[in-house]
Amino acid sequence: MPEHARRRAGVDALLFDVFGTVVDWRSGVAREAAPFLARHGIAADPHAFADAWRGRYQPAMEEVRSGRRPFVTLDAIHRESLEATLREVGADPAVLPEAELDDLNHAWHRLDPWPDAVGGLERLRRRFVVAPLSNGNIRLILDMAKPAGLPWDAILGAEVSRAYKPQPRVYLHAAEILELPPAACMMVAAHNGDLRAARGAGLATAFVPRPREHGPDQATDLAPEEAWDVVAPDFLALADRLGA
Amino acid sequence: MPEHARRRAGVDALLFDVFGTVVDWRSGVAREAAPFLARHGIAADPHAFADAWRGRYQPAMEEVRSGRRPFVTLDAIHRESLEATLREVGADPAVLPEAELDDLNHAWHRLDPWPDAVGGLERLRRRFVVAPLSNGNIRLILDMAKPAGLPWDAILGAEVSRAYKPQPRVYLHAAEILELPPAACMMVAAHNGDLRAARGAGLATAFVPRPREHGPDQATDLAPEEAWDVVAPDFLALADRLGA
Repeated sequence: MPEHARRRAGVDALLFDVFGTVVDWRSGVAREAAPFLARHGIAADPHAFADAWRGRYQPAMEEVRSGRRPFVTLDAIHRESLEATLREVGADPAVLPEAELDDLNHAWHRLDPWPDAVGGLERLRRRFVVAPLSNGNIRLILDMAKPAGLPWDAILGAEVSRAYKPQPRVYLHAAEILELPPAACMMVAAHNGDLRAARGAGLATAFVPRPREHGPDQATDLAPEEAWDVVAPDFLALADRLGA
Repeated sequence: MPEHARRRAGVDALLFDVFGTVVDWRSGVAREAAPFLARHGIAADPHAFADAWRGRYQPAMEEVRSGRRPFVTLDAIHRESLEATLREVGADPAVLPEAELDDLNHAWHRLDPWPDAVGGLERLRRRFVVAPLSNGNIRLILDMAKPAGLPWDAILGAEVSRAYKPQPRVYLHAAEILELPPAACMMVAAHNGDLRAARGAGLATAFVPRPREHGPDQATDLAPEEAWDVVAPDFLALADRLGA
């Protein structure tokens, strides 16, 4: 969307998916899993372990989205998934030290942003309200933001609406909290599915592909699957495109 | 609380009252009310007008706290109170331009921090999670933070818990969201009543008096009414006291 189009559309706030779009979860989780696995003699590749752990994310959230399970935070989901992933690689979480399990679970609070993320957000926030719209809980998102210097104006998402993306009410509730019509909010994500749901709720959309989110063999979300309003290779280019 | 006491108490997060404690609402509202009142020939002193407008705050919130009224945002309460205050000074809000009323209502989004607030928060946030715990809605608090550079780590408060201080669940919900026991959270406020409620919910307490919040003739909240954990004359002194 060129500058004149952005003005016409009147986008005032940019809402960012976090895992994969802003931060590199795979490298960060693998980095922390590696010494844990080695220390306990668990024979698993740290990146494969990170993939398996993350692989349980959508099915676990679907239990909440479907209403089969009351709302629980992503921290709680991550912890259950960690224990299941450990069992999958032949380890018994019940005999592992609780403090170490808890610490490893908090690896998701300590993920590094992609190299362009902080610089891009610093530029974008001069012109727009910038906020994460993540399934992560507030504490997780703030722990991640603080050391990295991610300059969020507010932290929205799962815990505020007590629902998980891609449920429409997560997007609509964010717009409502920002006192904006949905069309004045632009969802920024590396995932076509997130953008599809955001568009369905009436938001503008920006696709920023992260072709290494899932490692060197990534096969999904390499290209836009719909005519999103903006497509940019990183947050700095996104700032260029939005005149920020 | 000297440094060793703070460490012992294990305070990790500081939660700030905003109106009066962080920002000078009276001067800010009067500054914006003055040209509005003049333009419409309304004979009211701008500071008295600000006081009258703010005076409707607690009774209006009490309607929500008591359950007589479903949760509404502070923006909505401010708007109703503005109209009532205008009628009180003999003006009919129904004949005033909607855009101007809306703009004046947003004066609450544009309040200036006390001179020590930004510098103090910058120091405190290096050591603690700093977050507003305000009855203001998220959009209001972020609009206020952005131009002033208030470096919040997250925005908590009324809209997240859908309740108004001093109801205990507002304080408890903030601690829960920060994944901390209440005792690891310290409420910072210029108001004894807010601190009393925070202490009742198990939070640590810091009193920072703002003796000009209500103008030169202020008679309330000039001194601590209980033995609060910390008493400091401003946020810079608070940072000193907390070793930040």
